[in-house]
Amino acid sequence: MNKNEDLTKQIKLMSPEEMKSLASEIKKDMIETVSNTGGHLASSLGAVELTIAIYHVFDSPKDKIVWDVGHQCYASKMLTGRWDKMDTLRQYGGISGFPKRHESVHDADDPGHSGTSISIAYGYAKARDLSGDDYSCVAVIGDGSLTAGVSMEALDAAGDCRTPFIVILNDNRMSISKSTGSFSKHLQKLRTSNLYKNFKTNLKRVYSPKGVHRLSVIRDKLKYSLLPKSIFEELGFKYYGPVDGHDIESLTNVLRFVKSLDQPVLVHVITQKGNGFAPAMEDPTKFHGVGKYDPVSGDTPSADEKSWSDTFGEILVELASKDPDICAITAAMGESTGLAEFAKAYPDRFFDVGIAEQHAAAFAEGLALNGKKPVVAIYSTFLQRAYDQILSEICLQDLPVIFAVDRAGVTGRDGETHQGIYDIAYLYSMPGMTIMNPRDRGTMENMFRLALELKTPVAVRYPKNCPGTYPVPAGNGSPQIIREGSDVLIISDANMLSECIKCAGELETKVIEGWKPLSYAVCDIGILKPLDLEFIDRALTLYKYVVTVEDGTADGGFGQRVSAYAAQTGKGKVLNIGWPDAFIEHGSISELRAAYKMDSRGIAERIISFIGGRS
Amino acid sequence: MNKNEDLTKQIKLMSPEEMKSLASEIKKDMIETVSNTGGHLASSLGAVELTIAIYHVFDSPKDKIVWDVGHQCYASKMLTGRWDKMDTLRQYGGISGFPKRHESVHDADDPGHSGTSISIAYGYAKARDLSGDDYSCVAVIGDGSLTAGVSMEALDAAGDCRTPFIVILNDNRMSISKSTGSFSKHLQKLRTSNLYKNFKTNLKRVYSPKGVHRLSVIRDKLKYSLLPKSIFEELGFKYYGPVDGHDIESLTNVLRFVKSLDQPVLVHVITQKGNGFAPAMEDPTKFHGVGKYDPVSGDTPSADEKSWSDTFGEILVELASKDPDICAITAAMGESTGLAEFAKAYPDRFFDVGIAEQHAAAFAEGLALNGKKPVVAIYSTFLQRAYDQILSEICLQDLPVIFAVDRAGVTGRDGETHQGIYDIAYLYSMPGMTIMNPRDRGTMENMFRLALELKTPVAVRYPKNCPGTYPVPAGNGSPQIIREGSDVLIISDANMLSECIKCAGELETKVIEGWKPLSYAVCDIGILKPLDLEFIDRALTLYKYVVTVEDGTADGGFGQRVSAYAAQTGKGKVLNIGWPDAFIEHGSISELRAAYKMDSRGIAERIISFIGGRS
Repeated sequence: MNKNEDLTKQIKLMSPEEMKSLASEIKKDMIETVSNTGGHLASSLGAVELTIAIYHVFDSPKDKIVWDVGHQCYASKMLTGRWDKMDTLRQYGGISGFPKRHESVHDADDPGHSGTSISIAYGYAKARDLSGDDYSCVAVIGDGSLTAGVSMEALDAAGDCRTPFIVILNDNRMSISKSTGSFSKHLQKLRTSNLYKNFKTNLKRVYSPKGVHRLSVIRDKLKYSLLPKSIFEELGFKYYGPVDGHDIESLTNVLRFVKSLDQPVLVHVITQKGNGFAPAMEDPTKFHGVGKYDPVSGDTPSADEKSWSDTFGEILVELASKDPDICAITAAMGESTGLAEFAKAYPDRFFDVGIAEQHAAAFAEGLALNGKKPVVAIYSTFLQRAYDQILSEICLQDLPVIFAVDRAGVTGRDGETHQGIYDIAYLYSMPGMTIMNPRDRGTMENMFRLALELKTPVAVRYPKNCPGTYPVPAGNGSPQIIREGSDVLIISDANMLSECIKCAGELETKVIEGWKPLSYAVCDIGILKPLDLEFIDRALTLYKYVVTVEDGTADGGFGQRVSAYAAQTGKGKVLNIGWPDAFIEHGSISELRAAYKMDSRGIAERIISFIGGRS
Repeated sequence: MNKNEDLTKQIKLMSPEEMKSLASEIKKDMIETVSNTGGHLASSLGAVELTIAIYHVFDSPKDKIVWDVGHQCYASKMLTGRWDKMDTLRQYGGISGFPKRHESVHDADDPGHSGTSISIAYGYAKARDLSGDDYSCVAVIGDGSLTAGVSMEALDAAGDCRTPFIVILNDNRMSISKSTGSFSKHLQKLRTSNLYKNFKTNLKRVYSPKGVHRLSVIRDKLKYSLLPKSIFEELGFKYYGPVDGHDIESLTNVLRFVKSLDQPVLVHVITQKGNGFAPAMEDPTKFHGVGKYDPVSGDTPSADEKSWSDTFGEILVELASKDPDICAITAAMGESTGLAEFAKAYPDRFFDVGIAEQHAAAFAEGLALNGKKPVVAIYSTFLQRAYDQILSEICLQDLPVIFAVDRAGVTGRDGETHQGIYDIAYLYSMPGMTIMNPRDRGTMENMFRLALELKTPVAVRYPKNCPGTYPVPAGNGSPQIIREGSDVLIISDANMLSECIKCAGELETKVIEGWKPLSYAVCDIGILKPLDLEFIDRALTLYKYVVTVEDGTADGGFGQRVSAYAAQTGKGKVLNIGWPDAFIEHGSISELRAAYKMDSRGIAERIISFIGGRS
C-alpha cells in the first residue's frame, strides 16, 4: 500500500475483512506517530472504522464529507494521501491537525470550533439542489458538539427540508470532558433502548437490502409505542441507530442504505474514544488533546512547571474558600482550564455547561443578578462564541462577572482556528469591560482580587504556557517599569514581556553604523483597558519613541489606543507591534513568533526600522 | 385605579372577571398610546392576559420573571407603576421599550436580543438554590426565540436539573416573521394534538387541585402511547399545555399548579399576536415593531422615501436577475431587511433561517464552498451573535460571502440593546474582511458589484434611515472629497457624512476670538477596511489637522487606524470622533447625536477644542 496515495478508491473495493485489517494498521500507526507529535488522539482513534466505512460507501470528493471540529480527522488524513506525512502533524510547515481544504480535495471544510458541520453540510446540500446536481452531503458530528447552539439551530433548519442530507452522529459519550446536560441523557436512553439490542443482534438482516423494508414496517408499527422516540425524529430527521461504530460491516450497511434516502437522515453511531489504545480508553480526557506520550504505556512526561491554567485553578480554589458567592463556569473544559480541584472542592458551585459558550455567559448573568460572583473560564478562541452575550448581557448591566480567558495569545500547534489573538480587540470596544493580563502568579492573584472588588465585568487573559519570573515584585495592574532606559519605551502586555526584555538587551548592545546607541526601557502595561492615560501621557513626554507590543492582533489592540492618544495630543512617535491581519498557522509558539517577527529579534528589527528608517 | 401605582398586589386579589376587564383596559390603552410612540405592539398585545395571570400567581419581585427579548413587556410596564408614563415610551428621557432594572424592581433583567431568558432565569434559580432560598424563577419566551441556539443550549442545561424552574412558552407562531424550521412544525403538532383538545374542554377540572393528580395518572398511562411526545419532555422538562393564552382562568390555574412543582417545567401557552386589535391580528409582522399608526384603522403614514433596506432589496433583486448564484439569507427579518421582493422573485434562493444568526453564517459558508454567492442580511446588533462564525468559518476560508449589515450605527428608539455601533470594531480585526459604507443608492450599487467581484468576505453596512443626496457622483469605495477645504480634513464614514458637511459649513462661518478662520474639507472614506493608506498619507501631509468621524464606537473604529498610521509616521495631528465607551440609550437619532456631541454642532465643538485647546 502506497502511503502517499489517495486510498479512497481502493477502499471502495475492499472486503469487510480487508477494511478491518486496514483499521488495525491505521490505529497502530496513529498511536505511534501521535506519541511523537502530540494531537487529538482519542477522538481520531474512535473514528477509524467510521472513516473507512464512509470512504467505502461515499464517493468523496464528489460526495461532500464535513467533519465537525476535525478532532476525528486523522484516519481521514491517512487515507487521503497524507499517511506518510503524519510525522509532520501539527509541526511548523507540516500538515495541520485539522482538515484543511488546501491539503486535500477530500477536506470539504476547514473546521476548528465545534458544532458548525451540520450548517455547512446543509449549505452544501442546498447549493447542490440549486445547481440540479446529485450527490451526498454528510456532516459527521460528535455528541459533545451536537448540543452547541449552532448545531441545534442547524437541526431545526435542516429537519424541515425535503432533500437528501445525512448527519452521522459519532456518539462517544464525551466532548472533551464527559458530556453533560439533558440531551446527553436522551442519547443514553436511545443507546440502551431495546431497538439497540435488536439492532445489534439482527443488524445484517435489518440493513441488508431486503431487510430494510422490514425495518421500516417494524418502525412504523412501533411508532409512538414502546420505543423511546428520538428528538431527531421530532425535528424531521429519519433516525437510524444506534449502530456499533467499530463494526465496519454494520456501518457500511447502514450508510449504504441511508445514502439512497431522499430526506434528512441521522445515523446514530456509538464509538469508543481511544478505541485500540488501552491508556486512551481508560482516560479519554487525558488523550483528547495530548502532548508526547509513551506509545506502549501511555505515560506522559511529568510537567516541570505549573501552567497558567493550574495557577488559575489554585488561586480560584483559595479565593472561593473565603467567599461562598464565587462560582465557576466552564464549557466542557473543566480539566484543561484548571478547574478540576475547584469542581471537587465546591461541586455545587461548579457548572460545566458543555460546549455552550453562549449559555455559559447568559447563565453567569443570572447568577450575578442574583448575588453570586461567577468566574467563567473559557479559552480565548472559544469565548468568541459568547461575544453577543458578554456585550449585551454582562457589560450592558455592568455585572460582576469575571472571564478567565485561558489560552490568550498565539497558542501554537492547533493553528488558525485556535490562536487566541482576537480577544483584546473584541473585548476592548465593549463599554465597561476591564481587561487584565498578569505576568506572574502574584500578579494574577492580585488581579483576581481586584476584579472581585471592582464588581464590574472583567476579563483576565493569560496564555497557554507558564507564569514568568521577573526581577520586580508582583504587579497590581498599574503600568510598571520592568527594565530602566531613557530613550525608547517598550510598553508590552504581560504575554510578550520576556521577548521585549530580551529585545531591549539585544538592541542596547547592537552596533549599527552611524547610530548613537539608544537606551531602552520596558514597561508591563498590566491592565490593558482602561488605559492609564496619565501614564501614557508621561511616557509620550519622557521618551523619544514609544513602542507597544501585544500578543493579539495589532488591529484593534491596546497599542492603537496609545497611538490615538499620541496622534490627538501630537506627543511622540508610536509604533504598534502585534500579530498581523492574517490567520496564523500551526507550529510551536517560538517558531510562529520568529516567523511573524514577534520574537525578540523580530521586534528589534521592527524597532530599528521604525526609529532609523532602515531594516 | 391609580396608574402610577404598582398594581401587582391588587392583581393577586382580583377575580377572573376583574382580570378580564383589566386586560381589556390595558389593550385599549396600549393600542392608543403606541399609535403615538410606535413600538412592539403585536407581541405585547398578545401577552396581556398572560402577564396579568403571571402577576396574579407569582409574587414578583420575590419571584423572578425574566421576559425574553422584552417585546412582550408593555402590559408588565403598565401594571408595575409605569402606566401613566406609557406616552413617553421609547422617547428620549422617557421609559424604555424593553424591561430595564433601573425602571422597576419587577424587571429582573435588561433583555434585548432573543433567546437568553432561559439561561438567565436558570442562573437566578441556581443562585437561589445556593443561597438556600425558596421562590420561583420564570422565563417567558416566544416560540421564535426558543430556537435561537442559546435557548437550546439552556434547555439542555436546565432540563438536567432537579430544581424548581419554570419556562413559559408564549407560542404565537411568529417570531417577527412567521416562524420557520422543524421545531416550529413540532409545536404545531403539539398545538393540534388530542391533548390540546381535551385540555380545552376539561381545563378547569384538570388543573383544579383535585384534577391535577388525575392528569398525571392519565399522562403516565398514555406515555409513549398515542400522544405526540414533546421534545421538552425528552429534554427533562415536565410539559403542560397547550393552554389558551387569552383565557385568564385557565392560565392562572395552570400557573398555580406548576408553581408548586419541584422540577423543571415548561408551560406551552398559545397566544395570538396583536390580540384585541384587528389590523395587528391580520398583519402581525407589520405591527411587530411599528411606527405611528391610526389607532382605529391601523393605517400607517406612507413613507416618503425609500429606506436603505428597501434600496438594498431592490439592488439585490436586480443583481440576482443576472446571476443565478446569488442567494439571500436572513434571520427572521425577511420584510424588515427589504428582502420581501427577493423572496417572491427567487423563493428557491431565499433562506429565512429564523432567529439563528450563527447558523445563518455557517450555512452561508456551505453555500459559498459549493459555488454560490450568499448575501446575509442581518441587523448590525444581531450579527453580533455570529461573530465566531464570520471569523472562523467565512474569513478563515476567505469565502465570497457578503454581509448586508442593516441598521448599522445608532438606530434610535430601541435603545442600548439595538444600537449598531460595534460592527466596525468587531469586523475590523477579522483578517481578510472588507468593510464598506455607501452614502447613496448609486454608491450602494457600486459597492455590491465590487463585493461580488472581490470574491472575498465583505460587509456592506448602512443605517436605518434613507440614502442621502450629495453634490458629487456616486462613489466606488475610494476616498472621495465631498467638500473642498485646505486646513482641516474631516474624514467621515458615509453615515455621518451629512453631519460633517453641515459641521464644516458652520465652522467656516464661526467667529472665534483670536482665531484666524480655517478652511474645512470633508471626505467620504467609502471603504473603511482596508484603509487606503496612500490617501491617508497624503491627507496627513496636506492638512494641518485630520479629524475622523464614524457612526460606531470610537474605540476600535477606523479612525484609530488612521491615528496609528499618523503616530507611527509622525505626520499630522488626528482627532477620532465616534460614539463613546458607553451604552447609548433610546431616543430619536437626532436627539442622541445631539446628546453625545455627534451632531454637526457637537462635532464642531470637539474640533474647536482639538484645534484650539478650548471648548
